[in-house]
Amino acid sequence: MVKVAVLGYGTVGSGVVQVIGDNGDLVSKKSGTEVTVKYILDLRDFPGDPYENLVVHDFNTILEDPEINVVCETMGGVGAAYNFTKQCLAAGKSVCTSNKELVAKHGPELLEIAKANNCSYLFEASVGGGIPIIRPIMDALSAEKIERILGILNGTTNYILTKMEKEGADFNDVLKQAQDLGYAERNPEADIEGHDACRKIAILASLMLGKTVDSEKVYTEGITKITSDDFAFASKAGYTIKILGVSEAKGEDSVLTYVSPFFIKKSHPLAMVNDVFNAIFVTGNMVGDTMYYGKGAGKLPTASAVVADVIDAARHVGKNVPCYWDAEEAKLADIKDASFKYFVRVKAESLEQIKGIAPGGKVVDGDVSGQAGYITPVLSEKVFAEIAEKLGDNMLGRIRVYC
Amino acid sequence: MVKVAVLGYGTVGSGVVQVIGDNGDLVSKKSGTEVTVKYILDLRDFPGDPYENLVVHDFNTILEDPEINVVCETMGGVGAAYNFTKQCLAAGKSVCTSNKELVAKHGPELLEIAKANNCSYLFEASVGGGIPIIRPIMDALSAEKIERILGILNGTTNYILTKMEKEGADFNDVLKQAQDLGYAERNPEADIEGHDACRKIAILASLMLGKTVDSEKVYTEGITKITSDDFAFASKAGYTIKILGVSEAKGEDSVLTYVSPFFIKKSHPLAMVNDVFNAIFVTGNMVGDTMYYGKGAGKLPTASAVVADVIDAARHVGKNVPCYWDAEEAKLADIKDASFKYFVRVKAESLEQIKGIAPGGKVVDGDVSGQAGYITPVLSEKVFAEIAEKLGDNMLGRIRVYC
Repeated sequence: MVKVAVLGYGTVGSGVVQVIGDNGDLVSKKSGTEVTVKYILDLRDFPGDPYENLVVHDFNTILEDPEINVVCETMGGVGAAYNFTKQCLAAGKSVCTSNKELVAKHGPELLEIAKANNCSYLFEASVGGGIPIIRPIMDALSAEKIERILGILNGTTNYILTKMEKEGADFNDVLKQAQDLGYAERNPEADIEGHDACRKIAILASLMLGKTVDSEKVYTEGITKITSDDFAFASKAGYTIKILGVSEAKGEDSVLTYVSPFFIKKSHPLAMVNDVFNAIFVTGNMVGDTMYYGKGAGKLPTASAVVADVIDAARHVGKNVPCYWDAEEAKLADIKDASFKYFVRVKAESLEQIKGIAPGGKVVDGDVSGQAGYITPVLSEKVFAEIAEKLGDNMLGRIRVYC
Repeated sequence: MVKVAVLGYGTVGSGVVQVIGDNGDLVSKKSGTEVTVKYILDLRDFPGDPYENLVVHDFNTILEDPEINVVCETMGGVGAAYNFTKQCLAAGKSVCTSNKELVAKHGPELLEIAKANNCSYLFEASVGGGIPIIRPIMDALSAEKIERILGILNGTTNYILTKMEKEGADFNDVLKQAQDLGYAERNPEADIEGHDACRKIAILASLMLGKTVDSEKVYTEGITKITSDDFAFASKAGYTIKILGVSEAKGEDSVLTYVSPFFIKKSHPLAMVNDVFNAIFVTGNMVGDTMYYGKGAGKLPTASAVVADVIDAARHVGKNVPCYWDAEEAKLADIKDASFKYFVRVKAESLEQIKGIAPGGKVVDGDVSGQAGYITPVLSEKVFAEIAEKLGDNMLGRIRVYC
């Protein structure tokens, strides 16, 4: 018998209670034991809610109840969530979480506490919502040296870019629509500036290496500078634009991890990932390319991933489910030393100038009055920065090209 | 310390030895113990092979060696492979396999023997080659009621269909090319008639239900009747043609499982799965649509999946890794009771006839001289059979439409 406590009765937390309720027989069968929710921790009351009698306001009720062996942390943030998680793990209660911020910031420490106390810290839901990605990397691809991870990791920005492409609309208009529909937050910075994707790629990069990639050191560029003109050029040249979290092995022990918008070929599997869907493209040294696709957010998909972790924790009560992620910091390569092709959008009269200073590239046509487009050959970031400086105000935009 | 024996030193078996060799540090780290190959069973000798001194000819050497706790069955077939697997499991040695025929035919029995002897029968490599699909269904989606599985499960037929689409070529010409390139067997029947896909979808359907779907009772239609004319119509109407293994839940305890070519919309994620790639589209009641993509065959991708199982077995020596698949037969729905839209290719002069007997459909143009195309409304298989009879020789081809 496994009794579960859910910390935070918001979107994901109420989804967890619903999944364990609706799919209860299945959850218990897969767990090999009956699984029920005993407490829901929230500051609020929920009169009329079918689970209102499970709501408690004092965390200690949960911590001190020896019947509780699995806790779902669906509060978010790195304050109380961190504190509660540490105390639960220290008391031998496994914690299953969707809190990517906490996993990115304190993952190795919490994994260590779990190991020392014969319980588990599980976080399938922290990346890719309902998409199984943590387990495939940890288990199904366990025999692989992972060479590269490329992910569409944020549903809000993917929705915005998809709309911009399909409707020829401008960023700000689509953002406003997305906010009205509830797909984007009133304060959208974490999504549109790439911070959310950054935390997720830092988690994946850490699992890829078994060492810690600090999300605060990851180069992160958002989508606020992408315009409908960029899409006009991309489309005519056979590309679309996606914001990707990227992690590439560089030699034996170094990794280049960053978030950036990219031109990607329409024939690439990631190009067909539209709207709020996410996908993660993982390349291993034996298996080659694999991809995982699904809803990257939303109440039930995310809750389903938390409950899959509950089942895993329930199967391993009193034991630690291992995770290969040490506190040691990974050696990060600097994006300044990386090389890319660049799509450059310039004033029409500057086309000859860029052809002269970045010879060997390809002119692309976007049918945009007064503008010209050019894809450079592969250049280092340093060399491209010099070119951009020479172009000055004649450069209207630039986007890296994935190739 | 885990010592492994590999049964069969063919394509996959030699891949397993290579993956454990090349990624040895990683395999041992993930296993939590050193993993090495001690024996390779084969009837042949391999003079000059770097592992020639591991080759043995007598299965009993392996069976009777108490040091061997994990065995990789990469022989194929249901004769000796079945016999050896049973003996290994009965002796408490876990077996990891890529043998889909054996898993489809004797899976539940072998799982039962494994459970009774505190060891495991693992078969990630039996479906989708290097694509993690067995584990995602069993673990990451463990909280889901799976409603539908749709898979491009055979690389050879997907290669043939992709070539036919891209080059406008005919089936027989592309089959010959595929044979010359080694992508299709000299005797291609298991692939082109859908038998290989049938075994794989039967395995996935069994895992979806936790009961046994007998592959011999699964309706299976291959791709030998698909022509370049079908692709001409599909392409102009915004479709491509793929052969899919399908398993759909029907009510609480029944399932409709079959293999058939389909018209699918070019915007569907499965439509971009080309060449020898495979993909499996899984829909759960909470998570919605998810998809898993990668190389469905090939030495190293398949071997990588076998070795992921070796790591799992090594982590659980003396214990059973559970699998929810009972011997009890699942209740199979009959495809005769199912309904589809149908693309019908007829002689040009018969277009009015089909519009008359299947009203409410859509005329599609393929620019093929003397032919017309029509997509019917949703009809039951029984009703469509009557229509096909009325059309007689005027019907040149028909393909189900996925919608």
